[in-house]
Amino acid sequence: MKDYILKIDCTDEKGLIYRISDIIFKYGLNIDNNSEFVDHEHDRFFFRAVIKTDKDIDESGFCGNLSAVLPKANIIFKEKAKKNVIILATKETHCLGDLLIKFYSGELNANIKAVISNHDSLRDLVEKFNLPYHFISSDDISREEHEKLVLAKMSEYSFDYAILAKYMRILSPNFVNAYEGKIINIHHSFLPAFIGANPYKQAYERGVKIIGATAHFVNNDLDEGPIIAQDITMVNHEMNWQQMREAGRYVEKNVLGKAIDLVLDDRIFIYKNKTVIF
Amino acid sequence: MKDYILKIDCTDEKGLIYRISDIIFKYGLNIDNNSEFVDHEHDRFFFRAVIKTDKDIDESGFCGNLSAVLPKANIIFKEKAKKNVIILATKETHCLGDLLIKFYSGELNANIKAVISNHDSLRDLVEKFNLPYHFISSDDISREEHEKLVLAKMSEYSFDYAILAKYMRILSPNFVNAYEGKIINIHHSFLPAFIGANPYKQAYERGVKIIGATAHFVNNDLDEGPIIAQDITMVNHEMNWQQMREAGRYVEKNVLGKAIDLVLDDRIFIYKNKTVIF
Amino acid sequence: MKDYILKIDCTDEKGLIYRISDIIFKYGLNIDNNSEFVDHEHDRFFFRAVIKTDKDIDESGFCGNLSAVLPKANIIFKEKAKKNVIILATKETHCLGDLLIKFYSGELNANIKAVISNHDSLRDLVEKFNLPYHFISSDDISREEHEKLVLAKMSEYSFDYAILAKYMRILSPNFVNAYEGKIINIHHSFLPAFIGANPYKQAYERGVKIIGATAHFVNNDLDEGPIIAQDITMVNHEMNWQQMREAGRYVEKNVLGKAIDLVLDDRIFIYKNKTVIF
Amino acid sequence: MKDYILKIDCTDEKGLIYRISDIIFKYGLNIDNNSEFVDHEHDRFFFRAVIKTDKDIDESGFCGNLSAVLPKANIIFKEKAKKNVIILATKETHCLGDLLIKFYSGELNANIKAVISNHDSLRDLVEKFNLPYHFISSDDISREEHEKLVLAKMSEYSFDYAILAKYMRILSPNFVNAYEGKIINIHHSFLPAFIGANPYKQAYERGVKIIGATAHFVNNDLDEGPIIAQDITMVNHEMNWQQMREAGRYVEKNVLGKAIDLVLDDRIFIYKNKTVIF
Repeated sequence: MKDYILKIDCTDEKGLIYRISDIIFKYGLNIDNNSEFVDHEHDRFFFRAVIKTDKDIDESGFCGNLSAVLPKANIIFKEKAKKNVIILATKETHCLGDLLIKFYSGELNANIKAVISNHDSLRDLVEKFNLPYHFISSDDISREEHEKLVLAKMSEYSFDYAILAKYMRILSPNFVNAYEGKIINIHHSFLPAFIGANPYKQAYERGVKIIGATAHFVNNDLDEGPIIAQDITMVNHEMNWQQMREAGRYVEKNVLGKAIDLVLDDRIFIYKNKTVIF
Repeated sequence: MKDYILKIDCTDEKGLIYRISDIIFKYGLNIDNNSEFVDHEHDRFFFRAVIKTDKDIDESGFCGNLSAVLPKANIIFKEKAKKNVIILATKETHCLGDLLIKFYSGELNANIKAVISNHDSLRDLVEKFNLPYHFISSDDISREEHEKLVLAKMSEYSFDYAILAKYMRILSPNFVNAYEGKIINIHHSFLPAFIGANPYKQAYERGVKIIGATAHFVNNDLDEGPIIAQDITMVNHEMNWQQMREAGRYVEKNVLGKAIDLVLDDRIFIYKNKTVIF
Repeated sequence: MKDYILKIDCTDEKGLIYRISDIIFKYGLNIDNNSEFVDHEHDRFFFRAVIKTDKDIDESGFCGNLSAVLPKANIIFKEKAKKNVIILATKETHCLGDLLIKFYSGELNANIKAVISNHDSLRDLVEKFNLPYHFISSDDISREEHEKLVLAKMSEYSFDYAILAKYMRILSPNFVNAYEGKIINIHHSFLPAFIGANPYKQAYERGVKIIGATAHFVNNDLDEGPIIAQDITMVNHEMNWQQMREAGRYVEKNVLGKAIDLVLDDRIFIYKNKTVIF
Repeated sequence: MKDYILKIDCTDEKGLIYRISDIIFKYGLNIDNNSEFVDHEHDRFFFRAVIKTDKDIDESGFCGNLSAVLPKANIIFKEKAKKNVIILATKETHCLGDLLIKFYSGELNANIKAVISNHDSLRDLVEKFNLPYHFISSDDISREEHEKLVLAKMSEYSFDYAILAKYMRILSPNFVNAYEGKIINIHHSFLPAFIGANPYKQAYERGVKIIGATAHFVNNDLDEGPIIAQDITMVNHEMNWQQMREAGRYVEKNVLGKAIDLVLDDRIFIYKNKTVIF
C-alpha cells in the first residue's frame, strides 16, 4: 500500500469537493482522510487528502485531470516520501542534536544531507553521525559575501527544506527569495513578543511569567514569516535570563521538532503570510 | 444566511465523499467547511459539514436523498439552532455559576430550562437568573426512588442535553439508558486516573504534580463514558488536598464549558465508547 | 488559631534571616512556611512568612522590633484577613461574572464593595448579587472629567484593591498615581505581544498559534505594568478573530482569577516593575 | 565563589530557622536563597539553602554544629558539584539521545559514566560519545540472574544516580533496595493513569484527550514511587496508538530531562513516598 498526498488551494466556489471527489472516484481511489477549510476573509479554499492505494498512479496525469476541472488551483499530488533537508546552525546543540538523534533512529521523516555553520564548533557532533559539515566563516567578509558562499554550498545539494536550527544570522531578502517557503526557523520567543536579539533577556527584563518559542517559515521581514507552531513554558522571578534560556531550550527543540514533523508530512499551506495546517 | 449541519457516519467504503458531495452539489449548496475521518480499526467513516445558504432546505427530503445513496448510514441534517439543556447540580457553584453567567450574557449556545438538585442550597443563585429550581431531596428514600423523582421532573421538560455540573450522585443504568448520549458529566480528575470518590484527596496522597478534569458522556460504568475534553493544571508539595481542589475548580469549569461548546455545536460523534470531534 | 503574614524587603546583606528569625523566636512564634529570594541584579532581599499562632500579637510592636534590626526595610506584618475590593468593568460579563459567583459562594477572599462602569448594561447582573452599581457615563465629557467622576465615586469606598475586569478605558497617570500598586488589570494578550487595541484581531492577522492573557498591576505606561500571571490557549487557522476572542475569554477569567487569589493572599512584592510571587 | 547546598529535614518544632540561621551567621555566611516547607500532615520540616561564599568551609564541621542544635535532623551540606550518573536503557533513542547530547554540550550537570542495556542496539549511538556501553543480554537466563549481572556491572562504577531512560525491565525489590532513592525512571503515562504495559495503547483504547509522562524515583511497587515531574500533551481521535507514542516521546524526554535537572541540583526531598521540590 502507498500513501499519496493531494493538496489543492484555489478561490472558493460551489462544487469544489464534488469535482475533486468525482475524479478520485473515477480513478477508483479511496480517500483515507481529508480536511477542507475555507478562509472566508479571502475566499480561499484549502483541501488536503491522503489516498491509500495499492495501485501506481500516474501523478501528472492525475493532476492534469484535476486541473481540467479546477483551472486556477494550485495542485500537488505525489506519493508520500522521505524529504531531503539541509540544516543551518551556529553554535547551540539542543535543536541540531535533537534532529540528529531523530535522523539516526529513523524517527525523522527526512534525510539530512548536510549541516552548514558559520562556526566550526559543531563539526565534531555532526561528523559523529557521518554527515557532511561545512564551516563557512563570516569573519572578515561582508554579510553579502558570506551569504553568497552559503548559497553556493547549499546549491550543491538537492533538498526540499532548509532548517535553521538556531542559525543566528539574519538572512537577506536575496537569500530568502532563493528558497521561498522552504526555510524553517525557530525563534526563541512566542512571537510577536520579543522580536530581535536576546529574547530571553528581554523576557527577563519585562518580568513575564511565560516564555516560548515559535517555528515559522522565513520571509523578508525578520521574525515576521508565517507561523507553524508555538509553545510556552512557565517561568518565575527566581530565574535569571540564563535560566530562562535553559528552560527555553526544551521549548525550542520541541516546537522546531513538531513544526518539522508537520512540514515533512505535507500538512501545511502558506497563504497571505499565515499557515493552514491539516 | 442560515447554517445547516450535516453529520454522517457509516461503514467506510469507496466513493462516500463523492456520493455526499454529489447530492450537496445537486442542491446547489456550498460546503462552508467539512471534516472527514476514517477509523481504520473499525472501518468507520465520519463526516461533518457546515453548509451556509440563504435557501430553506427541506431537511427530511435532503436526508432521504442521502439515505438513498448511503443506505446504512446515520445521517443528521438540520439547521443550526440553540439547544435546550437541563442542569443537575449538588452544592458547588463554580460550574453551575459559570453556565448561568454564560447563559445570561448569551454566550451559551443553549437555553437552560431548569436546574435540578438533591440539595436546596443552590436555589437562591439559580433563581437570581429567573430559572426554575427543583430541589429533590434524597433523604430517607432509596437511590431508586430518588432517581424516579428526578427522572419524572426531567420528563416535564423538553431538552437536548442534561449537564451534570458537579452532580455528586452515581447514576443507575436505568437513569443513564433513559438519556443515552445526552448526559454530560464533569469528573474532577484526568481520567482514568483517580476514578471514584474525592480524586483531589487521592491526588494529594499519591503526590502527583498535575491534576486535571475530564468532561465525558455518561454511560453505565462510573467514570468510564466517552471522553469529550480534558485539561490539567500544575500542583506541588505545598498544596494540601483542599488547595488542589481549589486549583481544580478552574480546570473543572473550563473543561466542562469547552465540552459543552463542542456538544452544542454538533461537533461530536460517539462511537465505541470514544468521541470523534471535528 | 490565627494566621499572620510577614512581608519584608530590603537591600540584601548578611544575617537577615538570622535577625528576622531571632525576633520571631523571641516572640515564641513558629514559622508555618516561609519563602526568601534575593534578586542579585539589584541586591534586593524578599522574605515572606506565614505565622500560625493562638496568641494575639501587637502588630505595630512586632514591626517596631523588626525595624530596629532592619532599619531600612519595608515591613508588613498583619493578621490574614478578607480584603475589600472595588471592580471596574465596561460591558463584558465573563470576568465580572466569575468574580461575582466566587464572591457569592465565599470562594473569593474579599468583599466586593461596589462595581463601577462606563456603561449601564451590567447593572442588572450586579444587582442580582445585591451590590452597588455605579454607572458613570463617559458621553459628552472629557476623559479627564470622566476620571474625576470615577475617582470621586471610588473615594466613597474604603478598599484595598481596584480590579479592572475588562474595563476598556485607558487610565491617565493621575488616576494610576492615586492608587499605585492597588489596581489590577486583565489584558487580553500574552504581553508584551499585542499591546493596545483588539489584540485578538492582531493575533488573527499575525496568524499565531497561541493566544493568551496577562494580569498585571497598572502603571503609567499602557500594558507595561508589573505582570502577575499569564496563561495561554492554542488556536488554529479555522478560528476567526471572534472565535479567538471566545477562546480567550476562558483564559482571561482564569488568569484574572488566579492573579487576584495571589494578590488577596498577600503573596506579591512589586519591585522595579516586576513581581516577586511566593 | 563556590555554592554550597544545605538540606535539612526533621520533625517540625519552634525555632528551627532561628537555630539554622544562627549557625550560618556565626560562620559569617550569606544565604543566597532558601526555601522552607512544613508538611502539617506529618509535622515535618524541610529546608534548603544555597550559600555562596569565597571561603572553604569544613563540611563535616559545619554539619556537626548543625547536628548539635538539630539532633534528629537529616542534614546534608556540601559544595555543589557535578554528579556522576549511569544510564540504563533498552532500545529507544529519544531519552538516551537527549541525555547524550546534553552531556556532550556540557548542559547536563553530570558525568555519564556508562550505559547498560539488555540489548546491543544502542551501542553504536553510545560509543559515538566515547562512553562505555555494556550489553547484558537477558536471553536464556532468569530475571534474577540478569539483575545480578546488571548489579555487578553497576558496582564497578561510582555514581550518584541511575537513570532508567526507557529501560523496559521490571526491577525486583532486591535491585531497588540496592539503590534506594537513587534510581530515576520515566514512565510513559501521567501516573497513576495507565500503570503497566503499553500505556499508549491503553490511552488510545480509552479515548483520552491528553497523554503524558511521569518521572519518578523507583521503589518496590511498579510505577508507584515518588513522583518528581509530570507533563502532558493533547491528542485526538485522528491519532492511533503509534502516533500517540510518537507525540509522547516529546513529553517523555522533556519530563525526564527536567526531573534530572532537579535531582542533579539537589532540589528534592523524598518523604513518605512523595517529593518536596524546592
